[in-house]
Amino acid sequence: MTSKPPFDRGNWPIAAAMIPFPSTLPDGTLVQEQGVEGWAATLAEVVDAGFTELDPTDSWLRVADLTPSRRREFFALTKSLGLTIPAISTSRRSVIDPEHGEAYLAYCHRVIDTAVEAGAGAVCFGLFGPFSDAQKQSLWFWTAPGVKNPDDPEMWKLAVARLRDLGRHAAEVGLELSLEMYEDTYLGTADDAVRFVREIDLPNVGICADIGNLIRLHRPVEHWRTMIEKVAPYMKYWHVKNYLRMEDPRTGTIVTHPISMELGWINYREAIKIALAHGFKSAFLVEHYGGDGLTACATNREYIRRILPRRAG
Amino acid sequence: MTSKPPFDRGNWPIAAAMIPFPSTLPDGTLVQEQGVEGWAATLAEVVDAGFTELDPTDSWLRVADLTPSRRREFFALTKSLGLTIPAISTSRRSVIDPEHGEAYLAYCHRVIDTAVEAGAGAVCFGLFGPFSDAQKQSLWFWTAPGVKNPDDPEMWKLAVARLRDLGRHAAEVGLELSLEMYEDTYLGTADDAVRFVREIDLPNVGICADIGNLIRLHRPVEHWRTMIEKVAPYMKYWHVKNYLRMEDPRTGTIVTHPISMELGWINYREAIKIALAHGFKSAFLVEHYGGDGLTACATNREYIRRILPRRAG
Amino acid sequence: MTSKPPFDRGNWPIAAAMIPFPSTLPDGTLVQEQGVEGWAATLAEVVDAGFTELDPTDSWLRVADLTPSRRREFFALTKSLGLTIPAISTSRRSVIDPEHGEAYLAYCHRVIDTAVEAGAGAVCFGLFGPFSDAQKQSLWFWTAPGVKNPDDPEMWKLAVARLRDLGRHAAEVGLELSLEMYEDTYLGTADDAVRFVREIDLPNVGICADIGNLIRLHRPVEHWRTMIEKVAPYMKYWHVKNYLRMEDPRTGTIVTHPISMELGWINYREAIKIALAHGFKSAFLVEHYGGDGLTACATNREYIRRILPRRAG
Repeated sequence: MTSKPPFDRGNWPIAAAMIPFPSTLPDGTLVQEQGVEGWAATLAEVVDAGFTELDPTDSWLRVADLTPSRRREFFALTKSLGLTIPAISTSRRSVIDPEHGEAYLAYCHRVIDTAVEAGAGAVCFGLFGPFSDAQKQSLWFWTAPGVKNPDDPEMWKLAVARLRDLGRHAAEVGLELSLEMYEDTYLGTADDAVRFVREIDLPNVGICADIGNLIRLHRPVEHWRTMIEKVAPYMKYWHVKNYLRMEDPRTGTIVTHPISMELGWINYREAIKIALAHGFKSAFLVEHYGGDGLTACATNREYIRRILPRRAG
Repeated sequence: MTSKPPFDRGNWPIAAAMIPFPSTLPDGTLVQEQGVEGWAATLAEVVDAGFTELDPTDSWLRVADLTPSRRREFFALTKSLGLTIPAISTSRRSVIDPEHGEAYLAYCHRVIDTAVEAGAGAVCFGLFGPFSDAQKQSLWFWTAPGVKNPDDPEMWKLAVARLRDLGRHAAEVGLELSLEMYEDTYLGTADDAVRFVREIDLPNVGICADIGNLIRLHRPVEHWRTMIEKVAPYMKYWHVKNYLRMEDPRTGTIVTHPISMELGWINYREAIKIALAHGFKSAFLVEHYGGDGLTACATNREYIRRILPRRAG
Repeated sequence: MTSKPPFDRGNWPIAAAMIPFPSTLPDGTLVQEQGVEGWAATLAEVVDAGFTELDPTDSWLRVADLTPSRRREFFALTKSLGLTIPAISTSRRSVIDPEHGEAYLAYCHRVIDTAVEAGAGAVCFGLFGPFSDAQKQSLWFWTAPGVKNPDDPEMWKLAVARLRDLGRHAAEVGLELSLEMYEDTYLGTADDAVRFVREIDLPNVGICADIGNLIRLHRPVEHWRTMIEKVAPYMKYWHVKNYLRMEDPRTGTIVTHPISMELGWINYREAIKIALAHGFKSAFLVEHYGGDGLTACATNREYIRRILPRRAG
């Protein structure tokens, strides 16, 4: 069905997510306003954990909103640390956000330009909104209801139009655009995600199969395998993470917990095999919520390296 | 109480289970009808995960049902991959199955002959039946009710008679026969398992102390320690796996999840110590359901090697 | 805020807890009455798991209650095994125990003298009582109600007075005294622990921030981060362990399970960073309940070594 993958277990780009690091320091300083030394201290931890690739996720730092000179300083720093940037992901910057949709659209265009500057091959956007109060008050945010994309065909079309616009921009500068699967958005199920990217209908726009977002929900969910099988032909830059998932049929109890990729419900050995069989050739982003996310991300990186094919085509 | 164990942490046979691999491929091909190259691709993953021993469990491939020439091809393949076969386990081939009991009895005799051909030292049989519909529809099959052995002394005697018959056959060809502990069968508790093998009363027939099958149940269970203490004098070829087990006394909630052997409820350091003190000297089969079973099995293998005695008698 | 820490990831003292080992052997022998060879067999496992530091926790062996010659034998043994003893912890020897409080107070004085003999730098005491029957009958003891410190200002003052007395003794011989956070005791919350040690008001007396004891409870708990922030200025010898913690806001279900430090709810990378920023410079004790505690403790030790600062001041 496909040609051989372009990378192997030794060199496949596997980026650290910055989601374990907050945008505000304990003393109230914003990472956005930190000096280079401050960024360096944080990124030194990422390097110390064995990473050679980084996604400067904007829940930590909005690189695209730095001044040009500060942005050059950031990229000089990552280069000096031996970190390459295969992709930049945004989080909670929906282009149809009721309040900030247009501003986020403009921001996403800037992220694309910044990704080019970073030497990246992909950007990743999603339609999920800010945390609800209930989510903020929960031990794990996914156990409480969050913002939902409206059940409104006009809004769906607006989302398609704006993301197609971003997709064209990305294509012009040689980037792929990966759209994140996330509950209660227009990419909230495998079927919806496929329908959405087929409507955008651009070869460089695909699905970020972050099904960890879905299998952690305290509600009935589709089997990870059928989800991956449905989205595999459309997969681009891939956020990966895993969860324990327990269901008690007697009582309807459902509980979930973050765990290392190899021990959670999703069998990533199989999921990656299915993706590769459909020609997946993008980078991975290893994620983990809860506990020491950076350490778990490093464990996830090593796991992926162990199960990827031995030798590139 | 016993002589020193015949192996040490460096050379104790620890076989990969094939339960992470299905009997039907995504394209509908049966593993039973696959060519040698297909088997080779699957077993290459097992070797890549660091295994040098294999149990060709029949949930993946019924080696005993291959033609003699195909069987020779299979064994030539495993040999070429550096895999030895310490034992062959069957799954869901109960000799008292209401429909197929006699056919499965004949099949189990063929498995014994095949084990000899494989150079194995053991076979492992059980009295558990096919998955119920409720089990097929559950996230984890052990959370739903399955087939039960009938509460019928005549059927119990028939099971004893047929397995004793198989035990004699195994003895004639120098094999041990290990009978798997499994809920709602005549080996569904430690006491029942002991009573059952004592009734068979053959020195080469013992208990496969797969207590992971029991401690994962969403119902009250006996403590792993008393179970192991009861069955230790009768233990043969040993299927090992572990589970998280949570109980909330306030509400009666019970939930379980597969986890690596070192982190689950059963303390295998202690369980193995108890078994060795009673003369356990058979091979291990590392198992794991859920997620990437093969990777978890490899982790389990390394764990066992770390805690086994340093030097053989 | 503080000077550089005195150790780095290579040499920070990280002691094995003896809580995975019982005080009574399977054959009924008390560890307290075992010969040196018996102790040696147990400690050989600790060494085999890679430990170079030991806390001879008294749930295993009351070193302070050995005769002087037996005590010398014990220390000669640990020395011969390459084990140093940075601290001695007691468990369930509350100096305000309704029955044994005075005897335990005398015992704790002996523990201090023994710690000096051991070359230790710290002792660790707590106000938690013996297991209740409900705890003994639970799968995990922390899911059932235990003994509570009385809501009685006079008793609180007695606890302060007796522990201040022990603190002065410790100071005289150059030891720090760390008081263990434990639910339903006078150190049952971060605020209560701070209030308690501030009342004692001795520079060598601080808090053992064993917040794993608290986050495992099947009841609402304070966030680990605010607990650590509150107690950080007072932290001494530190018992560390971690748990999975799941809450379902819909039903109020709470379940927890022991897990390796890097995968549980507490982010120890952050917790240690906060502690170091406040000048924490004591040893760690790695703990783990459930499953193979010693193996999990060894995993925890390696994890801490990976995330501690690279080079000492």
